[in-house]
Amino acid sequence: MSDSPIYDKVALIGIGLIGSSMAHAMRRGGVASHIAGYAHRAETLEKARSVGFADSLHSDLAACVKDADLVVLATPVGTYAVLAEQIAPHLKPGATVTDVGSVKSAVIRDVGPHVPEGVHFIPAHPIAGTEQSGPEAGFAELFDGRWGILTPPPGTDSAALERLKSFWHGLGSDVEVMDARHHDLVLAITSHLPHLIAYNIVGTADDLQAVTKSEVIKYSAGGFRDFTRIAASDPTMWRDVFLNNREAVLEVLGRFSEDMSALQRAIRWGDGEALFNLFTRTRAIRRSIVDAGQDTAAPNFGRSKKPS
Amino acid sequence: MSDSPIYDKVALIGIGLIGSSMAHAMRRGGVASHIAGYAHRAETLEKARSVGFADSLHSDLAACVKDADLVVLATPVGTYAVLAEQIAPHLKPGATVTDVGSVKSAVIRDVGPHVPEGVHFIPAHPIAGTEQSGPEAGFAELFDGRWGILTPPPGTDSAALERLKSFWHGLGSDVEVMDARHHDLVLAITSHLPHLIAYNIVGTADDLQAVTKSEVIKYSAGGFRDFTRIAASDPTMWRDVFLNNREAVLEVLGRFSEDMSALQRAIRWGDGEALFNLFTRTRAIRRSIVDAGQDTAAPNFGRSKKPS
Repeated sequence: MSDSPIYDKVALIGIGLIGSSMAHAMRRGGVASHIAGYAHRAETLEKARSVGFADSLHSDLAACVKDADLVVLATPVGTYAVLAEQIAPHLKPGATVTDVGSVKSAVIRDVGPHVPEGVHFIPAHPIAGTEQSGPEAGFAELFDGRWGILTPPPGTDSAALERLKSFWHGLGSDVEVMDARHHDLVLAITSHLPHLIAYNIVGTADDLQAVTKSEVIKYSAGGFRDFTRIAASDPTMWRDVFLNNREAVLEVLGRFSEDMSALQRAIRWGDGEALFNLFTRTRAIRRSIVDAGQDTAAPNFGRSKKPS
Repeated sequence: MSDSPIYDKVALIGIGLIGSSMAHAMRRGGVASHIAGYAHRAETLEKARSVGFADSLHSDLAACVKDADLVVLATPVGTYAVLAEQIAPHLKPGATVTDVGSVKSAVIRDVGPHVPEGVHFIPAHPIAGTEQSGPEAGFAELFDGRWGILTPPPGTDSAALERLKSFWHGLGSDVEVMDARHHDLVLAITSHLPHLIAYNIVGTADDLQAVTKSEVIKYSAGGFRDFTRIAASDPTMWRDVFLNNREAVLEVLGRFSEDMSALQRAIRWGDGEALFNLFTRTRAIRRSIVDAGQDTAAPNFGRSKKPS
């Protein structure tokens, strides 16, 4: 991590889980001289003030981005187009506009046209988070050992790109650069489909009339509780993800449903071999994820052995 | 927890994660005077010997169950019928035969007919486990604060039932009694469907050709890694669960698929309100599970903030 500022002023447009974690990590790494935070709601600003991760807090967009060297959009992606249009006249020449959204093609579509000549635009996505949200949920270690993906449009200034890479390294993250379209497909399978399925199964369980809700909760340790964690993620953020990565999500969902039908058929016809073969293959994937340092090897995610 | 033995000799037919955890918990609670373990494979017996959780270890079924007051079937449920037939002639009059399988109607169907007159038969299912397996994976705290479900067939001796309840309390578990058929439906939604879906999505991801396998692993922290944990569970055990709870699993899978189609349609038509409403409803379920003491409230299941 760096100990000299990479950007003088960083403006965080949005100070929820990701924005506030970036602020904590910026302070830890000493990568920014001044951290400015913007929120629409007074209540959010008040919470941020009490945590104290920003040098200045603003309910006015223009004041927040004024003189900023890096402007980070960190709100649900559905708000980006309007925000980009509003900040555009106030951006400093030579500044970089980036974001942290979970989709990237739609961001280029929505934000790109508003970015003025002389301002760099490099969309980004840190693959990190928790099921919690808001300015009190952030912590400095969120990005440590996780991957950040940058999706610079063709013709992006290479010095601006290197600077943003250094910034993310300074926050503890590893960095990859890829095409926005490829990002959207990769994330559709590694993140968007898992969230969609988790939301769906939790909804199905909630609806199941023959089983009372209290039983679903009581016996959730059998597997169900794992799904409820990601199904507790921020509803607005995830609505916007699905509305803005429609094609890739529908593509991987189609494949998932085909595979599910095959599995359904194997159960109906008692094809134990097909079940056993799939269940053996999937075990190896878990090992690879643990070996790659992307999850803990401890049983049950290392949940306390004692009941919480 | 009790400190006087509830059963004199307990025979564990199967000493994997559940059997070995029961042995550790029996020792901790002082609920058995002698713990006997059976395994088919010499390698398993050797591992169990080195961990040292049993008073005697056997490759001979008759020797293991001889004089036992409680006999616990703790192997994959597909093996129960043959095991029950083999142990039947060697069971002590007044003994109780139980099990730990994740399905209950099929166990009554497969084991019931073999249980001799004068021997009690009370199927059971502790709702506890990890993704690991084998005699080295067990630990005494596995059942603490979890639920154990007993499904006594009609006409079960009430003294034998109370004794088995005390035994599970002595292992740290809470106990409920219910009808086997109801158990199978509740578990289909809280455990079997989640496992099936996890196995399926991990398989789909593995197959997706446009995304390389290393990318699926690299960016798994976006949500996918949560599913890989339960998709790393024991393949033989889970094959047998699906083959033996076919009807209930197909029923809940049908509901899940209908809901999935509705969600797919909402994404295709850009129905943000439908998405937002579902995503808000599911968040409440997570809170209920945490409030019920069935999962940790810590973000990311309390995984270490530092990368493992």
